[in-house]
Amino acid sequence: MLKGIDPLLSADLLHLLASMGHGDDLAIVDGNHPAATVAAATSSQTLIRLPGVPMERIVRAVLSVFPVDSFVDDPIRAMAVVGDPDAVPEVQEKVQTVIDEILDESIPVEKLERFAFYAAAKSSFGVIQVGDARPYGCFLFRKGVVPA
Amino acid sequence: MLKGIDPLLSADLLHLLASMGHGDDLAIVDGNHPAATVAAATSSQTLIRLPGVPMERIVRAVLSVFPVDSFVDDPIRAMAVVGDPDAVPEVQEKVQTVIDEILDESIPVEKLERFAFYAAAKSSFGVIQVGDARPYGCFLFRKGVVPA
Repeated sequence: MLKGIDPLLSADLLHLLASMGHGDDLAIVDGNHPAATVAAATSSQTLIRLPGVPMERIVRAVLSVFPVDSFVDDPIRAMAVVGDPDAVPEVQEKVQTVIDEILDESIPVEKLERFAFYAAAKSSFGVIQVGDARPYGCFLFRKGVVPA
Repeated sequence: MLKGIDPLLSADLLHLLASMGHGDDLAIVDGNHPAATVAAATSSQTLIRLPGVPMERIVRAVLSVFPVDSFVDDPIRAMAVVGDPDAVPEVQEKVQTVIDEILDESIPVEKLERFAFYAAAKSSFGVIQVGDARPYGCFLFRKGVVPA
């Protein structure tokens, strides 16, 4: 435990987040995601598992210290519903609410087709997997910069 | 880099600090200290080197997230001057100023005889070594708890 740091941000998770640089993506995925397979392909080959933690809760903890990239139009992406790409599943709606609450600017969550998401997640820096079973709880957050 | 976290707190240093629990000591030592020997005996066997960083600066960064133990009378200790245990070397004076500035309560830095310091440092959790050459820049900070 550290002063002023969300207790969900364990030593290993802080290490992962602090190791990332500008333009690196962080994958945060639900309990059904093939997270171990995906994580093995990432830059850090790191998978941090947080069973029992709801998706909104880990997103809140991560965004408390993680700067979101302002250099691109789609710094936050989620897996699109198969066959209904415009649908907004409940878990994505809840995460959007957390994003709107924590970040200074409104950043809409963009959609990525299922297999495009897997490919993008494999190109990410590392993976956090929560135990949340709600479908389509799969996100990519691109790291930005902390101003001087 | 992470939002709201001192940039000196790198991934490895955050990992060290967040891995510590209540009652664990952190050694922060100067450039002349036998830090590698000491670190090899610690619980984490970790040595984080920050050459070029003055002692006051790393203490300021660490104390920004590190809760100091309130269960003991001497949570912060420094190496005593050999032959003049009551002396307060310049680097210890500067560190006391940082402590007084950052912490809510005044915690005086207690003294530990040179070889007693080495023994205590070997029983600590891990070691941070800066490049600072000022003599007697050797400290032990005991970790406290973050309230619920």
